[in-house]
Formats: sequence, structure tokens, C-alpha cells
Amino acid sequence: MSTDQLQAYAARYGEAAIPAGAGSGPWNPVIAGLLAHRSVRAYRPDPLPAGTLDMLVATAQSAATSSNMQSWSVVAVTDAATKAAMADVAGGQRHIEQCPLFLVFLADLSRHERLAAEEGAALEGLPFLETFLVAALDAGLAAQNAVVAAESIGLSTVYIGALRNNVERVAELLNLPPGAAGVFGLCVGYADEARSAEVKPRLPQPAVLHRERYDAAGEPVHRAAYDQALASFSARHEMSAYRWTDRALSRWGRIASLHGRDGLKQALRRLGFPLR
Amino acid sequence: MSTDQLQAYAARYGEAAIPAGAGSGPWNPVIAGLLAHRSVRAYRPDPLPAGTLDMLVATAQSAATSSNMQSWSVVAVTDAATKAAMADVAGGQRHIEQCPLFLVFLADLSRHERLAAEEGAALEGLPFLETFLVAALDAGLAAQNAVVAAESIGLSTVYIGALRNNVERVAELLNLPPGAAGVFGLCVGYADEARSAEVKPRLPQPAVLHRERYDAAGEPVHRAAYDQALASFSARHEMSAYRWTDRALSRWGRIASLHGRDGLKQALRRLGFPLR
Repeated sequence: MSTDQLQAYAARYGEAAIPAGAGSGPWNPVIAGLLAHRSVRAYRPDPLPAGTLDMLVATAQSAATSSNMQSWSVVAVTDAATKAAMADVAGGQRHIEQCPLFLVFLADLSRHERLAAEEGAALEGLPFLETFLVAALDAGLAAQNAVVAAESIGLSTVYIGALRNNVERVAELLNLPPGAAGVFGLCVGYADEARSAEVKPRLPQPAVLHRERYDAAGEPVHRAAYDQALASFSARHEMSAYRWTDRALSRWGRIASLHGRDGLKQALRRLGFPLR
Repeated sequence: MSTDQLQAYAARYGEAAIPAGAGSGPWNPVIAGLLAHRSVRAYRPDPLPAGTLDMLVATAQSAATSSNMQSWSVVAVTDAATKAAMADVAGGQRHIEQCPLFLVFLADLSRHERLAAEEGAALEGLPFLETFLVAALDAGLAAQNAVVAAESIGLSTVYIGALRNNVERVAELLNLPPGAAGVFGLCVGYADEARSAEVKPRLPQPAVLHRERYDAAGEPVHRAAYDQALASFSARHEMSAYRWTDRALSRWGRIASLHGRDGLKQALRRLGFPLR
């Protein structure tokens, strides 16, 4: 294993949990870039290189899309007032205002609804949970390509799931038609390295990867090891040390901590997704 | 614009629809790789390089994950009988049997359920549509990183959304606990170049990208142009020429064409996702 490869896996898993096959495994600059991902929540105001938006959306459109239906869209927001309103929806995440480009990815069945109306046809398949899920997943695959492309030119990103705190307000701000909803946002910009983030360790690979059939037998051991690793990481890099277990109990322990997203189903229905 | 850059954008959009800013935009091997994506449905039986699975899962785990909850898992399937059964679920997609590695990505809240049980705590936030969506989107971001990593070492992939035709059968085959469900599969292997696919054109960028606010005013023109482009592409590469519009009407026109996925919501509920 090269030193670079060793360091990358150690940063992602901790030195004690480097996957056994990783050392002898494939390695190249693309893989190194993917492993080095970190979410960044502090941005410089510097503008993006010319043509960046076109390039990011082209890579996003190049991702696979279910049956080539392309049931997602993206709204590129640079207007300061709109970004401020989005930050408010997201519980005051000020990096949305700092970043020069804020992308809102939409699950978008409205294009198909317009298509059907123009063709005088009906699309019986649209009102289902399945079809919303296709649109949301396609938006996710597209966005992740844009993240990889952005990082390849030295930009940083962070996903903003908190737009789902109030999808109706997001729809209002972006003038969305019925059948379109923002499923998440993405900040894009140059990291403020004075407040830079480190690569965050993840669960040991055997806790997430199952072979042939699901097997959680080893999970308590892996979780205990990860609790220690994340307590150590958070003590070094964040306000306070915490176990992953405690963070999970805090994040999903009470309905109030969903910050309104317990109403997502009803809100999506009002935006034109029956979710049958 | 370099020749490579020009050719990559022309393949993705058609020569008449290359995005205006793309020519002056950033360009590097990562971007070139993303633009060159194609889904492959014919595989050679050749084995993967040693360590590939560990590497793919490490890149997948390196993707962003909502609040670091890591609410997804992946089952790596190589067993011939299981792959054959998966192909049956997916309506007879034989590339699932051909490829040496079939990854099933799970929305997985069961890990949090076990965690809560072991801690003697309740997780009130789990039974919501929001929480399932987080898990499914996290699985999507993870999988897309694995796709990018696979293609960077010369492998090909295709997503298999048709596992959702029968998520309960998939759960049975993989011995999934309640609170885990396969949201899609991913074939990984070496493309059989005798039956290779070309880069498929996508909708013109202005049909998908909106600036500041949603604006579908130009959509009919963009859709007409794309109908022509895809008819030309399909005449060259597929069984028959078809307009994108007709494909959309066919794919989502009738409930029967969902192949059982109109029952996804009920099936997910039986698998332990209340989707409140």
C-alpha cells in the first residue's frame, strides 16, 4: 500500500479499521479524491471559474437516470435575498448565504405532467410513492456527480437536507410548479480554510457491507469501536466529544428534532405528489 | 475548447445543444470520466481485481450522509442462485446473472433500531417518510460514488431499479431484518464490448437547469429538439427509433407498466417502514 493510500483509508476509517482488502486494491487519483471528501460549512466569497455551472449540470445529467426519464431539475440560486431565505428555512445555516452558488435539486414530475397535457395523454404512473422515489433518487445521483466534479476542480460542497424543514416555502421561493419539490440543497464554493473540516471517520466497513446475506452479528463490536473513534475525532475537531450512538439518539430520538420534517408527506401531497 | 471536451459535450447533448459556457469551462480527467458514463447491460464473466469490493464500499462510505447517520447498507451478491433470483425479480434482466458482482443498496434504519434497543431508548423520528427518504437518498449518494470509482478503473455498471418490483422477495433473498429494504441494485463488471452501449444524449441543459427561479417557458422547444435527437440515437443504437416523449408516455402511462411498484408503499410498510 502506498503512503497516500494508507493515509486516505486511515483518515476514513481510523488506523485500526482499514479494510483488509484495501491495501492490495485499486488506487488512482479519482479514488483518492472520493475518499478525501469532506463537507464544508464555511466559504470564501470568491466567484467560481467561468463555465462552472454548465459543467456541474452536465456531469449531473450524465449520471444514470431511471428509464432515462430524467425526472429531476436543479435551480441555481445566486441571489442574496433568496439564499438568505433558504438559510432561514434550513434553521439558520449561514454557509448557504456565504457560498457563491446554491443549487436546489428538485424531484420533478411536473415536466412529465406538462408533456402529458400537451400530448393529450394521461400518466397513470405518476401519483405513486415509487415515482416520487425515482425522481428523488435521480436527483441524488445527479447531485453526487456534481459534487465529485466540483471537488475535482478544488471546490467544496455541503448538502442541505434541512430544506425539507419546509418544502412549501422552498417551492414558493423558487416559483415551483405543482409536481416539483426541492429534496435537498447543495452549497458550492471555495472552502474557508481558516475554518476547514477534516475527513470524518465512518462506521467500520463490516458494519455496512454484508456478503451474500445480511448479517449484523458483529455490529455491537463495530459500533463500540466507532463510538470511540468518533469521540476522539469530535474532541479534536468539534465543540465537544460525543459518541456516534448518542448523536443518533439525539438526531432521531424525538419528533421535535425532525424540525418539521415529520410533516413532509403532507407537504409533498400539497405540492402535487399524491404518494399513493 | 479542446477536441476531447467538444466531443464529450457533443456526445452528451448533441452538437446542436452543447451548453454555451461549457467550452470555456473547467476540464480535467475526472470531468471527462463523468461525462462519458454509459449504463452497460452486457458483461464478460471476468473477475474483478483483488480488493475492488473493499475499495468501492470505501468510496461509497465517503459520500456525504445526512447528519452522519449512515442509514444505508449494501449487500454484495456473487452467488449464482441469488443473482438468478434477483434477475427474476427484475423482470428477467440477465445482466444481473452475467456480472461478477451485484450490489444491493439498502435503505437501512434497522441499525438504528438495534442501537436504540441496546441503549434502552426510543427513536421517535424513525417511522416517518422523511427518515426513509434520508436512508434512500444516502444509499443513492453512496452508490453513485461507487459507480464513479468503478468506472475509474475500467469497470462498467448499471442500476437496477426493478428490484423495487418486489422488495419483499429481495428482503427474503438477503435475509433482511425489519427496517431494511433494497432500494436498487447495481451490476458491476467488465463490459462485453461486442454489445457495448454508447453515451446516451440527455435533455438540453436549459430544460433541466433553472436560474434563480423555475421557468419552463422554453420547454416545448427543448423537448422537440430532444425528441429528434433521441429518435436519431435510438435508430442508430437500439431496436427501433423512438421519441423521448413516447418513451415517457409508455413508461408511466399505465399503472401496469410500473410492474408492481404501485404497491411499493404497502410493501415498505410490511418491511418495517411506517412512512408516516
